Amino acid sequence: MTAVGLIGAGAMGAFHGESLARRIFGARLAAVADPAPGVADRLAASLDCPFATTDPSQVLADPEIDAVVIAAPARAHAGLVEAAAHAGKAVFCEKPMAIALADADRAIAAADAAGVPLQIGFQRRFDRGFRAARDQVLSGGVGEPQLLRSLTRDPDLEVEPAKIPAWTVFFETLIHDFDALRWLNPWAEAVEVYAVADALVRPDWKERGLLDTAVVLVRFDNGAIATAEASFRAVYGYDVRAEVFGSAGMATVGDIRESSMTYSGAEGVVSRGSQSNLDLFHDAYVAEIADFVACVRTGATPRSTGEDARAALAIALAAIRSVETGGPVRLAAVEDV
Amino acid sequence: MTAVGLIGAGAMGAFHGESLARRIFGARLAAVADPAPGVADRLAASLDCPFATTDPSQVLADPEIDAVVIAAPARAHAGLVEAAAHAGKAVFCEKPMAIALADADRAIAAADAAGVPLQIGFQRRFDRGFRAARDQVLSGGVGEPQLLRSLTRDPDLEVEPAKIPAWTVFFETLIHDFDALRWLNPWAEAVEVYAVADALVRPDWKERGLLDTAVVLVRFDNGAIATAEASFRAVYGYDVRAEVFGSAGMATVGDIRESSMTYSGAEGVVSRGSQSNLDLFHDAYVAEIADFVACVRTGATPRSTGEDARAALAIALAAIRSVETGGPVRLAAVEDV
Amino acid sequence: MTAVGLIGAGAMGAFHGESLARRIFGARLAAVADPAPGVADRLAASLDCPFATTDPSQVLADPEIDAVVIAAPARAHAGLVEAAAHAGKAVFCEKPMAIALADADRAIAAADAAGVPLQIGFQRRFDRGFRAARDQVLSGGVGEPQLLRSLTRDPDLEVEPAKIPAWTVFFETLIHDFDALRWLNPWAEAVEVYAVADALVRPDWKERGLLDTAVVLVRFDNGAIATAEASFRAVYGYDVRAEVFGSAGMATVGDIRESSMTYSGAEGVVSRGSQSNLDLFHDAYVAEIADFVACVRTGATPRSTGEDARAALAIALAAIRSVETGGPVRLAAVEDV
Amino acid sequence: MTAVGLIGAGAMGAFHGESLARRIFGARLAAVADPAPGVADRLAASLDCPFATTDPSQVLADPEIDAVVIAAPARAHAGLVEAAAHAGKAVFCEKPMAIALADADRAIAAADAAGVPLQIGFQRRFDRGFRAARDQVLSGGVGEPQLLRSLTRDPDLEVEPAKIPAWTVFFETLIHDFDALRWLNPWAEAVEVYAVADALVRPDWKERGLLDTAVVLVRFDNGAIATAEASFRAVYGYDVRAEVFGSAGMATVGDIRESSMTYSGAEGVVSRGSQSNLDLFHDAYVAEIADFVACVRTGATPRSTGEDARAALAIALAAIRSVETGGPVRLAAVEDV
Repeated sequence: MTAVGLIGAGAMGAFHGESLARRIFGARLAAVADPAPGVADRLAASLDCPFATTDPSQVLADPEIDAVVIAAPARAHAGLVEAAAHAGKAVFCEKPMAIALADADRAIAAADAAGVPLQIGFQRRFDRGFRAARDQVLSGGVGEPQLLRSLTRDPDLEVEPAKIPAWTVFFETLIHDFDALRWLNPWAEAVEVYAVADALVRPDWKERGLLDTAVVLVRFDNGAIATAEASFRAVYGYDVRAEVFGSAGMATVGDIRESSMTYSGAEGVVSRGSQSNLDLFHDAYVAEIADFVACVRTGATPRSTGEDARAALAIALAAIRSVETGGPVRLAAVEDV
Repeated sequence: MTAVGLIGAGAMGAFHGESLARRIFGARLAAVADPAPGVADRLAASLDCPFATTDPSQVLADPEIDAVVIAAPARAHAGLVEAAAHAGKAVFCEKPMAIALADADRAIAAADAAGVPLQIGFQRRFDRGFRAARDQVLSGGVGEPQLLRSLTRDPDLEVEPAKIPAWTVFFETLIHDFDALRWLNPWAEAVEVYAVADALVRPDWKERGLLDTAVVLVRFDNGAIATAEASFRAVYGYDVRAEVFGSAGMATVGDIRESSMTYSGAEGVVSRGSQSNLDLFHDAYVAEIADFVACVRTGATPRSTGEDARAALAIALAAIRSVETGGPVRLAAVEDV
Repeated sequence: MTAVGLIGAGAMGAFHGESLARRIFGARLAAVADPAPGVADRLAASLDCPFATTDPSQVLADPEIDAVVIAAPARAHAGLVEAAAHAGKAVFCEKPMAIALADADRAIAAADAAGVPLQIGFQRRFDRGFRAARDQVLSGGVGEPQLLRSLTRDPDLEVEPAKIPAWTVFFETLIHDFDALRWLNPWAEAVEVYAVADALVRPDWKERGLLDTAVVLVRFDNGAIATAEASFRAVYGYDVRAEVFGSAGMATVGDIRESSMTYSGAEGVVSRGSQSNLDLFHDAYVAEIADFVACVRTGATPRSTGEDARAALAIALAAIRSVETGGPVRLAAVEDV
Repeated sequence: MTAVGLIGAGAMGAFHGESLARRIFGARLAAVADPAPGVADRLAASLDCPFATTDPSQVLADPEIDAVVIAAPARAHAGLVEAAAHAGKAVFCEKPMAIALADADRAIAAADAAGVPLQIGFQRRFDRGFRAARDQVLSGGVGEPQLLRSLTRDPDLEVEPAKIPAWTVFFETLIHDFDALRWLNPWAEAVEVYAVADALVRPDWKERGLLDTAVVLVRFDNGAIATAEASFRAVYGYDVRAEVFGSAGMATVGDIRESSMTYSGAEGVVSRGSQSNLDLFHDAYVAEIADFVACVRTGATPRSTGEDARAALAIALAAIRSVETGGPVRLAAVEDV
């Protein structure tokens, strides 16, 4: 039984906690930490977890705990990864692992030094459809990737400008797409980025600096041209799709339909859309934690690593600088900061 | 220029008249006959057709006319085919060509004796999707057909029990499905039929003998088992589909979507359905008449013949007797009538 | 922790055993019984289950065990249900619960007498798409059901005529479709059945009495006409679909695609099909056992009951008699046996 | 009968010639001009057209001719439009109408001065799916457009670098997408463009200056962000799609399937793709010429005008300059040339 501590008990953390407590064989939820008073207590109680605290360091200090799942706010991620690695814990960290390259480097170095697995919450890599697309690329069915697309549209991100950092659309949303594009173009690296972003969902947020809509064009060193696209509000549901087109074919992935049921009525042929990421990616979220637990047990390298997190972050940083400067930004340029 | 006379100027006849006058190269609409006062006049005038009459025999008597398209009420079909053949005209006749086998035999014999082409309005044979399904069968992609299905659902057949013959669902609607099933199972013939029919759309019609919903199970001599299904009212649109499943694969055909446009809104992902046969089968209706005109010119055998009409009729008659007797009916049995 | 014993460790039993041992919170796999030497031992060992036996009665005799999952051969089901109920165990029994109505009645009576939950393995009732279709019916979206269809095609049922009872296609395969049709037409009961069956996949089996292809027409007392269809071999994968068409709309369910990934190559746009029931219905199989465990704990009535099993069986028996007699069979007639 | 002369008898010109001669009521093909020896003769002969010439000016000089369809090489378009307008002919001109803004302006001015209709071959505006998408936008179903996408992938453009101008992917291919994006975002105009292009299909062409793959990001003055994407080789067929996403919903359009037939075999569920634009857009190509003929007759303004051609050209020119300079280019900047 792998003992796992959860750090951060928001919606995503709670789901991972439930997976550890109830959905994944060979794991147990050994502790829950969340700084908000009562939050960890309530989740721990509901999941028969023996220990709850407002202080993550208590989880890290517990010698019985083998691993931690970090689902805290993004800005705390890198420091927690570092601390957990120093404490000898295997680490699963939600995306983004860091929002500065130097922090990412320190987190990676800490995990390396401690010899612990470090896995990042890019759950699309564990989704059945995305995996099939990747397999199609790896098997040569797509040939050399030439054009890629990845998009994320949230049904309605409940955000308050005061609480949401300005660049959230890049750091939290598009980071998934940047990872997906890299993963579906496996023999190349991004070299240049051009990005446009705006406040189209809530124009009144623009002056407060919050952008809710963005398109990013990413150039790869094999010539492939990719677009990533995000919106904070799609009235029809949670929409995540990807497409990789190459010299030998195309793989597309993503189906917003909630189930295989289709209703035909006076309005036409209708399929309801998925309304949340926990619905659309339910199995992938479970699978990534199950795989993490297996890596902890076997010592295998996770399928999404700290290096992957860093590479996606670099694209995000280049995209942000592109929005700031109005021109394309080479990946090399964000390394100089 | 093949000169074609139109007999019957209802909705289907008017469409064929327009095709002859405006859509098909090498044909001209030379005459329109319809017994209802003014109907032929109006259609002929709108299509610059030089001759209109309430008397079909005037069309048949015209030596300038090479061929006729018969779109009169079903009960008049067989007699008109016979008369037209006797007059030496090539004949396109809407389905059903006849509603009694003896009439069908006489019509076929008349066309044979006159040496004129006789084509029946089974337009599904000219639909792109249905043709692709048939090609898949003929090429061996489906293997030996084992299970078939064909269905027809009308958006809302505007019928008055007083005007509609009781067995319309078999003679006018399912006759298409019977033909489609035969055509998609090309190396076999129907041997036995079991049918159930009811007045589910308008239960009050039942006592007046009008059935609006039916399912027919057809056994073929290669063992294949087929179902044909019809309803007079589908709220979502005009629904025509077929499926042929065999030892090597399956071909399905039929897409009720009006266009390739899909709208995603709060209610889900929506495609509007086609609302009429003239919409869904527009191209097939034009193609069958164009092909008929080509047969008239070249002497080629039509793709749907009098024999096909007779074979579909025999299945319809067996289905009707099955409803009457409550048991399965062998095709051989309806030959004895 | 609900302690559950497994009786029968074939493919389906092994899956349920895994669910009990590893996938379902609040359950534990307490015993495995299988008469084949070594089979129970191996499964129990792989799932850390403390007890294995070749004798099911040892499981029933264990006072620590709260419930049993019966996944033995069909002919043993009813007797095992009865015995388990007598032993005071809650019972989950794979379909068919019985292959004779008297046996079904005894099983139901035993469970009633013991006051234990009795659930049948009609997992489609737990499938997301099927549930959405049912919800659409219950909410009135479909209106009064008029035409229904349910089909099951196995990729390639590995069967040996010597081992497979003649009427397997009805008792084991179509029993699912009979249940689905009843469930999707919730305000009606079947009244008459007409069936056709043949050996089209393996014609050489026919003389040995094994039928592999069947179509069944079921009449309901609300007038609805349903077809159920089965084949033992579909080269493209495991194909389970249903359609319910009514006065207000249509719900269709079933998607044979393995994932949301579509590959477009020189051969066209391609989606791979699911190759097994354990793949296509993975979540439904887990959900039905989870729900059973919840019923054991809460005393709630299962979503598929012994009465449902009996009603589906009656349709199967009527279908078999229809094949034997060549005519339609009223449900009332099979009650007289 | 509107008498129409055809200028340019290549693949597209020949199709329009056939439409004028055989598919469109009320039009006749009165002349064919093509500078290549014998080409006009052969097409005219096959279509029973009375006049063929290698000299377009003979067509323009013919007082019997009401209108011309220009399907010559792109570089000749603007001059021919101007000459035809001066000769008082109504003009249908294939895209691009011009490849320099000054030429476009002269062509528009000539048509205005002559008071003749000027229609451009943006046939997507006449495609059923694209029209439905536009209707969805106009009716408010999409709300304010925020994110758009349009793409064109040719199955295998047979091109010789020596014969193909360097910027063909922008002038000839993406010009369709630029028009589609403008048409689907009807209350806005493009303000800035960023483009990336490469020779990924034939890397050896790159040094000869021929680009075969491109992605263009277009900013509109309502904030909408659009991407246009092109490739000269898609192994699966001719792929044209569009998506418009807004505050109230999304419309997608484009279906590469050749027909409604789907084949399921061992390789999965397969739909063949359309292999040519003349196949996928057959009806739209006929409809645009039919509409042009109607405009000639009625004096109505065409649905795609010279101003539309100019606006799409401006985006193409900005895209080309973006490739040349490596940075974004404002539309205003290309006006200064």
